[in-house]
Amino acid sequence: MANSIRIVPLGGLGEIGKNMMAIEYGDDMVVIDSGVMFPKEDMLGVDLVLPDTTFLLENRRKLRAILITHGHEDHIGALPFVLRDFNVPVYAPPLAYNLITIKMREHHAGRDIDLREVEAGDVVKCGAIRAEFVRLNHSIPDACGIALFTPGGTVFHTGDFKFDYTPVHGLPADFHRLGELGRQGVLLLLSDSTYAEMPGFTPSESVVGQALDRAIGDAPGRVLVTTFASLIARVQQVIDAAVKHNRKVAIAGRGMIDNVRMSLAKGYIKAPDGTVVDLKRLDDLPDHQKVIITTGSQGEPTSVLVRIANKGHREIAIRNGDTVIISATTIPGNETVVSRTIDNLYRQGAKVLHARNAFVHVHGHASQEELKLMLNLIQPRYFVPVHGEYRMLVAHSDLARAVGIPDENIFVLEDGDVLRVGRDGAGREERVPAGHIYVDGMQTFDTRSLVLRDRRALARDGIVVVVVPVDHATGELAGRPQVVSSGFVEANEAADMATRIESLVERAVNDGVERSEEWSYTASRVREAVTTYLQGETGLRPMIIAVPLEV
Amino acid sequence: MANSIRIVPLGGLGEIGKNMMAIEYGDDMVVIDSGVMFPKEDMLGVDLVLPDTTFLLENRRKLRAILITHGHEDHIGALPFVLRDFNVPVYAPPLAYNLITIKMREHHAGRDIDLREVEAGDVVKCGAIRAEFVRLNHSIPDACGIALFTPGGTVFHTGDFKFDYTPVHGLPADFHRLGELGRQGVLLLLSDSTYAEMPGFTPSESVVGQALDRAIGDAPGRVLVTTFASLIARVQQVIDAAVKHNRKVAIAGRGMIDNVRMSLAKGYIKAPDGTVVDLKRLDDLPDHQKVIITTGSQGEPTSVLVRIANKGHREIAIRNGDTVIISATTIPGNETVVSRTIDNLYRQGAKVLHARNAFVHVHGHASQEELKLMLNLIQPRYFVPVHGEYRMLVAHSDLARAVGIPDENIFVLEDGDVLRVGRDGAGREERVPAGHIYVDGMQTFDTRSLVLRDRRALARDGIVVVVVPVDHATGELAGRPQVVSSGFVEANEAADMATRIESLVERAVNDGVERSEEWSYTASRVREAVTTYLQGETGLRPMIIAVPLEV
Repeated sequence: MANSIRIVPLGGLGEIGKNMMAIEYGDDMVVIDSGVMFPKEDMLGVDLVLPDTTFLLENRRKLRAILITHGHEDHIGALPFVLRDFNVPVYAPPLAYNLITIKMREHHAGRDIDLREVEAGDVVKCGAIRAEFVRLNHSIPDACGIALFTPGGTVFHTGDFKFDYTPVHGLPADFHRLGELGRQGVLLLLSDSTYAEMPGFTPSESVVGQALDRAIGDAPGRVLVTTFASLIARVQQVIDAAVKHNRKVAIAGRGMIDNVRMSLAKGYIKAPDGTVVDLKRLDDLPDHQKVIITTGSQGEPTSVLVRIANKGHREIAIRNGDTVIISATTIPGNETVVSRTIDNLYRQGAKVLHARNAFVHVHGHASQEELKLMLNLIQPRYFVPVHGEYRMLVAHSDLARAVGIPDENIFVLEDGDVLRVGRDGAGREERVPAGHIYVDGMQTFDTRSLVLRDRRALARDGIVVVVVPVDHATGELAGRPQVVSSGFVEANEAADMATRIESLVERAVNDGVERSEEWSYTASRVREAVTTYLQGETGLRPMIIAVPLEV
Repeated sequence: MANSIRIVPLGGLGEIGKNMMAIEYGDDMVVIDSGVMFPKEDMLGVDLVLPDTTFLLENRRKLRAILITHGHEDHIGALPFVLRDFNVPVYAPPLAYNLITIKMREHHAGRDIDLREVEAGDVVKCGAIRAEFVRLNHSIPDACGIALFTPGGTVFHTGDFKFDYTPVHGLPADFHRLGELGRQGVLLLLSDSTYAEMPGFTPSESVVGQALDRAIGDAPGRVLVTTFASLIARVQQVIDAAVKHNRKVAIAGRGMIDNVRMSLAKGYIKAPDGTVVDLKRLDDLPDHQKVIITTGSQGEPTSVLVRIANKGHREIAIRNGDTVIISATTIPGNETVVSRTIDNLYRQGAKVLHARNAFVHVHGHASQEELKLMLNLIQPRYFVPVHGEYRMLVAHSDLARAVGIPDENIFVLEDGDVLRVGRDGAGREERVPAGHIYVDGMQTFDTRSLVLRDRRALARDGIVVVVVPVDHATGELAGRPQVVSSGFVEANEAADMATRIESLVERAVNDGVERSEEWSYTASRVREAVTTYLQGETGLRPMIIAVPLEV
């Protein structure tokens, strides 16, 4: 296809998180967002998940810029890792710019990167591609969509968005510019699908303000509020309610302290002098004049709220009369820990307001009517739903079909799928690598690694290690085998089985000598014999490792 | 307190599942229900969780009977284990009786137990306690509450319940008897709190029938329905819709096949001859005449639906035009796997109807208005909310307060708490043991066991085993230490670190010889040195085991 554009999703399509999308026209390529995913339960011990950048490395000479839509971790969190390999300009709206600056400093990697601040309305040149940032709304200030103008046509990527007619921060989405883009003709729309299953309109952030105001006004004693550290509008609303009800506000938890400090300095949060005070300063006040804003809305084990719930916080302990407000959605996968946190707060006598019993949160993504409005404003020829699990992408396609986009112009892509779009048609091309890169401590490994598979096996039934002393000359058993186990059964029961294992090992090794076989054969017969025995004895299949020790 | 009653919750209060409650009057004690809990994510490798029966063992001479409210696993699942220790009559309503019979047969334990079938309205004598079964509604037929008449007063335990004015099976709750009990005077009400946070009334099971009928009528091709195997009313409604729309029904999945077979035999499910057929028989029919009912609503890895979703089922593969109906709530903790199953079904071209996009399920527990109705019917002097996480028990207490029960007569108990209630007052007594008993294969262990702690450590960063050959006479190193790891880092990186570990071990052992210390001291210095080194190198803290091998 002459003059066509290549769309390469590297994260966020088919699975939520680590958003990253490469868009290429001729010899020029831009990347939109570079986020992390928080590990799921079966990614045992993993700290973070990054997008695979193999495709970008293979096409590095084309890469002109990384364009950031907004400052959430699932859109900026991978930058410290990705920028080790690429030295291209990163364009980001103001708040994202500030959050990236903090993040790079934490990674001691700030000096060499070429980070540039852009405002909604700015246009940046990336080779033959011109990128314009268009103001939208989301649960963090300064969220933008990005229009890419190429000689092959225009692509509009919404980033994460909702339409908020009465936002707490900044202005409503730039409807004029969206309409103008639509009228001029958009070849392809890439639009946020996170809430494509939700009927209706997402309520305005302002609506939560009223509920928070009432909850804080009615509270007989202290109020603890937890929300996402990046949900700055929510923090503003809590501060507003505190001021109105004559309370002081203290912040607890490093992520929250950093974000509030930066937001106050940059004017994202406004508070009368003396409203936001140190935690220590609250001691001098009666309980009904205190508000504490903390981290921990997702039940993170080291967060302030969870430590309070577990009676493990040095400065804050729940007492009767406390009101805890959990002003956040529970991210799928965190239900159990959040639930446990709420229970523990109740056990200590707090009243807890949360999504199930109070209206203390709205989310930041467009529901079905907003998604249809976006489709109507942009009126694209082609449509690709982005950001969502597969079923959400399908739900979003159904909406596109409902507003009149022909079925053959809708493409449900997953990470690694490649789509070519041009004025004379669109079609899929060969897939590219787009798996997970797991970060664990200072290590990384990818989906082919056996590390996670082994951890899952260890987690299930534990491990039994059999150390086999062998004579280096004859290969015969040169002493008593040693059996060690962990996470298998109670120690005394394991000890009872050790003697029997020793004799199984002895037989396997002697058989091996007779056959003059290599150790690897003997080892696998040892494993088999021990596995069969232990399964019969316990019903379990621990990992069995046989270690020869030549003496 | 003279003539008082002791209430001892052993499961289900403060945490959902493994319901079991001991109620004692003088020298007579009954146990209501004996259920299992399904393991939570952090109970690695565990198959089932049982209630702790230490208290029952200590009071075995008082135990007169086990009374079963209904046939769900979290109320009957522990019987095969508990009945090993106690030889008392078990009274159960008809369906529970049949399900227990099947269960005991599976455990090859049916012969010696004294299982007795009771109908709603029946009264059984348990020493000085008389127990009456009272008809209620739930998501399984034959659910009963139990009234215990003692010389000290009457206790009413609701079991799990809802009020259904138009049930699919059987009759609505016995409002007359509930009102009569209330008028005669109930000392203590123990009432189901599972949905105490939910405003309003729980819809009738009949309502789902209409939605299922429409979904099955509208489906262009095959319909696969998954629900709980015990939700027999739902299976009936699917069969009714299938008959109406001229489809045949096949059952897949052992649990579902067993329950449907028994329900057809006992008359719980009614179907015209030839409606329910073998899976193979469906091959001869066009797709729009097929319905398949399967297990897998909770994303269980070995269930039929999950194997279909993962393209791993031998007989059934999804094709375009298929409709899958997930007619169940997702039990907390299963969200991720259920979500993954839905995504995989969509990927293969199915349309999926589930709780988020269609009205294909109602749950079986009373919402707030029903709970208030129960409180108004029974009008107890004392109230203890049962069955629920702590916050649900608190929510239920709030309802009791709202309908006029004095605060000091409401007791939020957790498992192991003991309450004494009598005509002249009520108060807490010393706690009794009520932890988890974990079943893993043929093994059991309790909360004090280190098995789970070790599995969690193994799951996080893996394990490094250091085998140290030592001279049995001198204690000196007698060869090269061997280092083996699993679930730690990639094999090649582990190999790179092994040499450095060997020299660390060598130094620690030599130091130990100089100090002529015991091996346990040397071992702990080996672990420390290796831990520090590996953490510096990788940021990880694997489990380190040092094994001496005397040669």
